[in-house]
Amino acid sequence: MGEVTRIMVAVNQSSLKGYPHPSISSKGAFEWTIKKIVRHNVASFNLLFLHVQVPDEDGFDDMDSIYASPDDFKRMKQRDRIRGAHLLEYFVNKCHEIGVGCQAWIKHGDPKEVICHEVKRVHPDFLVVGSRGLGPFQKVFVGTVSEFCVKHAECPVITIKRKADETPQDPVDD
Amino acid sequence: MGEVTRIMVAVNQSSLKGYPHPSISSKGAFEWTIKKIVRHNVASFNLLFLHVQVPDEDGFDDMDSIYASPDDFKRMKQRDRIRGAHLLEYFVNKCHEIGVGCQAWIKHGDPKEVICHEVKRVHPDFLVVGSRGLGPFQKVFVGTVSEFCVKHAECPVITIKRKADETPQDPVDD
Repeated sequence: MGEVTRIMVAVNQSSLKGYPHPSISSKGAFEWTIKKIVRHNVASFNLLFLHVQVPDEDGFDDMDSIYASPDDFKRMKQRDRIRGAHLLEYFVNKCHEIGVGCQAWIKHGDPKEVICHEVKRVHPDFLVVGSRGLGPFQKVFVGTVSEFCVKHAECPVITIKRKADETPQDPVDD
Repeated sequence: MGEVTRIMVAVNQSSLKGYPHPSISSKGAFEWTIKKIVRHNVASFNLLFLHVQVPDEDGFDDMDSIYASPDDFKRMKQRDRIRGAHLLEYFVNKCHEIGVGCQAWIKHGDPKEVICHEVKRVHPDFLVVGSRGLGPFQKVFVGTVSEFCVKHAECPVITIKRKADETPQDPVDD
């Protein structure tokens, strides 16, 4: 048991409050991992935070921006990177307080595909994903990253569902 | 973090060698849990081993038995209980060697239903299930307890697939 156990945690921003706030489900998944797995045994674990940014979801994620030249888009991407970095900062700071080693990085693409690709590249011992606990009707529209990862990631996956008392009125919000 | 983390591990017998031998996938799931989660932190975890026995799968699980009276069936059930206990003994002994607390018990019924029912009753922090890693064609015939638990158990579930080099020639064997 010389080597540390490497736990990859997929994190994303709050869909209600946006960057740099973590979604309720990523925050829950992180806190569960610390409380139930890492506990005081901080030297035995390493957390690997992966944040996947979806490129240009609708092309207008910020109403006060005007895109008039390729440079504007570059700036936008640059700004997104910064906002993503602030999201990761939240988790890295928490780990620093607790005293557990961590790494964090950003990738771009379809979250479910990118997470599985990063698992293949980085070989974590297991993957933790938060889940909004949507009903079957809502799943049709928003898809579920967690279900895809459980099926396709090349490592064990543990899905942490949001607690019922943390679910917003519209459970698609997170 | 005063309370220990309670990990339920569903275990079954080897389909090739029978009782008291654990299946490759339950042995793998147990060893993974010790190596990657418990590690040396034995005082922080408690393992709860659940073995579900399927009653009278085909009515003839032992060719040298003749059932001629209700008492014969009682004796068979008694013998099954003993064989199940020997399976659990394997895991309890291992925990004892390692120094991690555990409990183990047997229930009867459809494994996937009983596991989810026991999760509801016992409230483990999470559930570990082994999986034979069957292809879609094989799944149709043997069903997968792990997929059912991932969907229906009222706690986080982590599925540990068998390593490729431990898969028997016919992957349905375990």
